[in-house]
Amino acid sequence: MYVLHDSRLSGNAWKVRILLSQLGLPFRRVSYVLPEGRTRTPEFLAKNPVGKVPMLELPSGEALFESNAILCHLAEGTPFLPEGLDRARVLQWMFFDQSEALKALAGARFWIGIAKKPEEKAAEIPVWHAAGNKALGILDGHLAARDFLVGERYTIADLANFPYVAMAHEGGFDMARYPNVTAWIDRIRAQPGHVPLIQDDAKGVV
Amino acid sequence: MYVLHDSRLSGNAWKVRILLSQLGLPFRRVSYVLPEGRTRTPEFLAKNPVGKVPMLELPSGEALFESNAILCHLAEGTPFLPEGLDRARVLQWMFFDQSEALKALAGARFWIGIAKKPEEKAAEIPVWHAAGNKALGILDGHLAARDFLVGERYTIADLANFPYVAMAHEGGFDMARYPNVTAWIDRIRAQPGHVPLIQDDAKGVV
Repeated sequence: MYVLHDSRLSGNAWKVRILLSQLGLPFRRVSYVLPEGRTRTPEFLAKNPVGKVPMLELPSGEALFESNAILCHLAEGTPFLPEGLDRARVLQWMFFDQSEALKALAGARFWIGIAKKPEEKAAEIPVWHAAGNKALGILDGHLAARDFLVGERYTIADLANFPYVAMAHEGGFDMARYPNVTAWIDRIRAQPGHVPLIQDDAKGVV
Repeated sequence: MYVLHDSRLSGNAWKVRILLSQLGLPFRRVSYVLPEGRTRTPEFLAKNPVGKVPMLELPSGEALFESNAILCHLAEGTPFLPEGLDRARVLQWMFFDQSEALKALAGARFWIGIAKKPEEKAAEIPVWHAAGNKALGILDGHLAARDFLVGERYTIADLANFPYVAMAHEGGFDMARYPNVTAWIDRIRAQPGHVPLIQDDAKGVV
């Protein structure tokens, strides 16, 4: 049985839950309230020295961290991770998520939408908004001529980018500027097996 | 023939040049002086909407961006990118490079070591130093018991993390605190086919 260590509002953990659902893989969920520091204990750090969620324990007992690496591992051998040049393009957009989009979108969402203390990050928020709007603009341009990021079908490239883009409005991003992105968000939400961020009633939740 | 679009001091482009050398793949190099804006032209953006180097044009004419995706594509089918759980671990450390290490190490290196204008980033530098020291500490702990990041052999996980870690001292990081990392840097530099950052006399350089 897979064991997913996550937290209730983490977009990076959400993407793993979506894929586990879409692959029909049963899992046990261990959710943390992050301010409690339980991802910084010696026991947790021995499995994941970064001290963050998500972390996936495999049926073998081995632990994997970094959400996009977890997606690649789970999707190997399935249509969610194609072969050849399309695989390179899937990885390209997955690294784009981490290098260009995530920090800006997630930072603004956390301080504006969740903590509701934007004044504590008054210097960072304009930087996050500039970087996030650049990333959203790139995605919008790329999606102008296609339904999905790679190869005209849903892959883990879409899934990797989906959570923080879908929640970007919580961080003050005006999504009306990105109609191709918002149409793509709707397409991702319509995929078979998709699950919402909040699913505390779902089977398997601790 | 591969065409690598890079810049002289880019660590992300350096990692691609190292792998091309280690795989024995001939390539033509197109180097940009980044302030000239030639990676923001319509022609460049049509191939890579992020407008950054490195970008690799494949023999087919297709273009790939995101340095770590380029490494994965080139290394597919070689010992530099193993199969199975080791592949998941390679990707885990490659995503770690982008999500935890790179921005902090590269930001400090650029403003302190290259631009030499740390006063312009007085607010960011302590943040970069804290995040970079956390990342270096994680790598140092992981390397305490092993010679390479994954599976006791050199892979693109090592190569992905190498450039900005090897140049971190330029950003004011005290590498004496990380003896396992500095020994690992020496091991990476000793790999067959390794090339230095500056190689303007090398064959194939524009």
